[in-house]
Amino acid sequence: MTQGGPFTLGQLAEALGATLEGDPALAVRGVAPLESAGPDEVSFLLTARYRRLAETTRAAAVVAPAEATALPGAVLRVASPQAALITLLRLFHPEPPHVPGVHPLAFVAEGARVDPSAAVGPFVVVETGARVGRRTRIGALAFLGAGAGVGDDVLLYPRVVIRDGVQVGNRVVIHPGAVIGADGFGYAFDGTAHRKIPQVGGVRIEDDVEIGANSTVDRGTLGDTVIRRGSKVDNLVQVGHNCDIGEDVILVAQVGISGSCRIGRRAVLAGQVGIADHVTVGDGAILTAQSGVPSDVPAGEVWGGTPSRPSAETRRIWAAERMLPDLVRRLRGLEKRIAELERGRA
Amino acid sequence: MTQGGPFTLGQLAEALGATLEGDPALAVRGVAPLESAGPDEVSFLLTARYRRLAETTRAAAVVAPAEATALPGAVLRVASPQAALITLLRLFHPEPPHVPGVHPLAFVAEGARVDPSAAVGPFVVVETGARVGRRTRIGALAFLGAGAGVGDDVLLYPRVVIRDGVQVGNRVVIHPGAVIGADGFGYAFDGTAHRKIPQVGGVRIEDDVEIGANSTVDRGTLGDTVIRRGSKVDNLVQVGHNCDIGEDVILVAQVGISGSCRIGRRAVLAGQVGIADHVTVGDGAILTAQSGVPSDVPAGEVWGGTPSRPSAETRRIWAAERMLPDLVRRLRGLEKRIAELERGRA
Amino acid sequence: MTQGGPFTLGQLAEALGATLEGDPALAVRGVAPLESAGPDEVSFLLTARYRRLAETTRAAAVVAPAEATALPGAVLRVASPQAALITLLRLFHPEPPHVPGVHPLAFVAEGARVDPSAAVGPFVVVETGARVGRRTRIGALAFLGAGAGVGDDVLLYPRVVIRDGVQVGNRVVIHPGAVIGADGFGYAFDGTAHRKIPQVGGVRIEDDVEIGANSTVDRGTLGDTVIRRGSKVDNLVQVGHNCDIGEDVILVAQVGISGSCRIGRRAVLAGQVGIADHVTVGDGAILTAQSGVPSDVPAGEVWGGTPSRPSAETRRIWAAERMLPDLVRRLRGLEKRIAELERGRA
Repeated sequence: MTQGGPFTLGQLAEALGATLEGDPALAVRGVAPLESAGPDEVSFLLTARYRRLAETTRAAAVVAPAEATALPGAVLRVASPQAALITLLRLFHPEPPHVPGVHPLAFVAEGARVDPSAAVGPFVVVETGARVGRRTRIGALAFLGAGAGVGDDVLLYPRVVIRDGVQVGNRVVIHPGAVIGADGFGYAFDGTAHRKIPQVGGVRIEDDVEIGANSTVDRGTLGDTVIRRGSKVDNLVQVGHNCDIGEDVILVAQVGISGSCRIGRRAVLAGQVGIADHVTVGDGAILTAQSGVPSDVPAGEVWGGTPSRPSAETRRIWAAERMLPDLVRRLRGLEKRIAELERGRA
Repeated sequence: MTQGGPFTLGQLAEALGATLEGDPALAVRGVAPLESAGPDEVSFLLTARYRRLAETTRAAAVVAPAEATALPGAVLRVASPQAALITLLRLFHPEPPHVPGVHPLAFVAEGARVDPSAAVGPFVVVETGARVGRRTRIGALAFLGAGAGVGDDVLLYPRVVIRDGVQVGNRVVIHPGAVIGADGFGYAFDGTAHRKIPQVGGVRIEDDVEIGANSTVDRGTLGDTVIRRGSKVDNLVQVGHNCDIGEDVILVAQVGISGSCRIGRRAVLAGQVGIADHVTVGDGAILTAQSGVPSDVPAGEVWGGTPSRPSAETRRIWAAERMLPDLVRRLRGLEKRIAELERGRA
Repeated sequence: MTQGGPFTLGQLAEALGATLEGDPALAVRGVAPLESAGPDEVSFLLTARYRRLAETTRAAAVVAPAEATALPGAVLRVASPQAALITLLRLFHPEPPHVPGVHPLAFVAEGARVDPSAAVGPFVVVETGARVGRRTRIGALAFLGAGAGVGDDVLLYPRVVIRDGVQVGNRVVIHPGAVIGADGFGYAFDGTAHRKIPQVGGVRIEDDVEIGANSTVDRGTLGDTVIRRGSKVDNLVQVGHNCDIGEDVILVAQVGISGSCRIGRRAVLAGQVGIADHVTVGDGAILTAQSGVPSDVPAGEVWGGTPSRPSAETRRIWAAERMLPDLVRRLRGLEKRIAELERGRA
């Protein structure tokens, strides 16, 4: 990480569009959480939950929303502390300068087109017919297969694999070890062996997508696997062949999505969720961690559990489960008492 | 993907051993699913489930079984549409031509033996004593450790790691990022620290195995971890030390198998299944997605759930679970009514 | 694996501090499990569970504890067979000799410091400001980002990625494909898009930690993600940003830990466990396989299930679940009988 600053509170107020309550000449050297910030750092209050920490922080200044009061030091008032924090972090930790050019130890095959403004690291392989866009950075040891296309302002971290023919949009970020476009998992059992169904489709990653470390997105059997604009995928996630992941979807770490699923726009799949093949998850649906999803999930609902159900129902089941051993005992007691009553009656 | 064709329906009928109902001179340029195929493409009807799509497809011709009727265009009748589809996909998407030779930017250590018919990509490392068989392709940035052996007609995609001493058979396919032969996870706690148990065994991958992207197969502590002939392993799967994975086994994405398990021939483990150590899964057993398997599973049975049980039982439990909150309510009602009856009787 | 030996039983007794019951001149060539050992191999009896195998082994000698009797061949008596086995395996399978030096095909940027006693493999990238300690080995195709620091006697296997600024202690082992220091998964939804929160913190891996193949440890948002001394992490594990993994913790394969968790000293998380964000797992706690952990776990307890509960409770629930379909039936029966009794009374 590169280091920016120091900045005066006056400079920060201007950069954040904040109203400063405090000394504009005071300089700070970094950003830190409320509990660990020192007197030469600026901190931030994102939610009322942390108000107590804000009241005792040693930070020189706190970025805070209008409603936060009783803060000990200077205050940088903003409408959205979350957005201000992003600006603040970029000020103190600017992106390293972009140095265009192909490293002499990279291998760019004949017939590949690398824009002169792109940066290609050592031991990168760009195969024939591949295309690298403007200002795009390809980290060391990454691989772009034949005919793969990567747009503008993309950041591929070291050791990413983009297989042949995969198309990546603009401003996409892919973290180390991710594999985009490996064969989908398709076989036909012919009575004696599993015969491989050639996976001749591709993958299309749209603009502003981010994909985590060591995640895998398989190519389609026929036609493309698609991850749409703005979706964010965490580490060690598996996306099967011919899936269609909608816009602004969140896939948390270790999620597994089987083949031919449709995940609706702005859906959120929490960690370790598993989705069976050909399932549709509706727009804006939320699946809680470790959900096992055998069939479609309606738009806008929160579901959880295995098999997944509406979360309210899953929570009632989980609460009742705790009583289950006790229920067995009580049921046995009732059976005895009824038998007794029946005997009395006979 | 390379592109073959166009082909006439007559040529396709011959290649597929199909009976053609239609114009043998009509040419098609590609394969596509029923719903998206255009008038210059051939499509396929694998199961009766998609019959309605077949009746309205725009495809020039459909590969279909004997029983499919009322198809709008030409028909290529075959005994097994599944097998025909594989042939069809290979016709239109032939493997890229094999170009033997070691890339000048590869590093092959002294004492390694690479067959002259093999193809070794840029930035590949082949360590001393390693052996690469005939017509085998080693993708860019892959690593073969000292003494590792890879058979004939193997395809290692870019960035595969085969650690020292690992033995890989013929016609094996390993996808990007897979790691074969990392140390098994074995420690002995001596009262103050976890002391590592050296993992001195190996891995043996038999013929016709396929292993997915970023999967990991650990070497044995003593003796080998084995994946037997014809087994297919999806992405992000973990196979622990000293496991014995039988022939023609299917391990779907994100499956985790602990150490010293035996998975029987033709067993199928669906996505995210976890198997405890020293467990035996019988031949042909099926474990449904996310199963947690603490103990042996009988041959030929379908099990599911955590802890895994016969699927019929698991399904009954899942159905009953939904009634659980209601059961609690009903049980309370009964307790009141019985108390009432008992009072009346006293 | 390199091969040591053969050794006489006399030599082994001395190396292990064992009392030999047998011929000190007898030579053995290797170590093998009881059931497969041949007459020129030494075996080991770790627990009484395997006593029967020991009684019929063909091994020339068995490493065994004081209480093991009726063994057929020579015996090497030791206080801790587990510790003796570690010594034995290292004798027969010594580490390959350390050959210092930077491979001519490695790329070490200006301003990086690699100790002359370190060994750096082919196609390794060491970026500017990075530091490699004494006798440390960096496997082929590994990547060390700008300003990353790796201590003494570290072993990075091929194709490890250590991103910029990550600090790795001494005697750490990291297996192929692991990614240390990728961005944490943090976004703020601004009403129209997920805006990335820059992840400007780092990762600190303390001494004697081991990290498995293709595992991922994310860098902190602000401040460090920490894995403390002696912890052992298996393959395909995800550790989120700003986690604090205590000393001597065990994380088994495919465990997923969300952001800002604290895992106490000597805790054990079995395979596929998932932990929600901001959760504290107490010192010495054990989480059984596939546990889903939404909230804190007390020190020293064994918990399991989803949602995780004390294991004794989870086991009772699992046992009662099996009766659930039967309970429904019995409850219906009771309802009928009570209605009958109530009618009789009316």
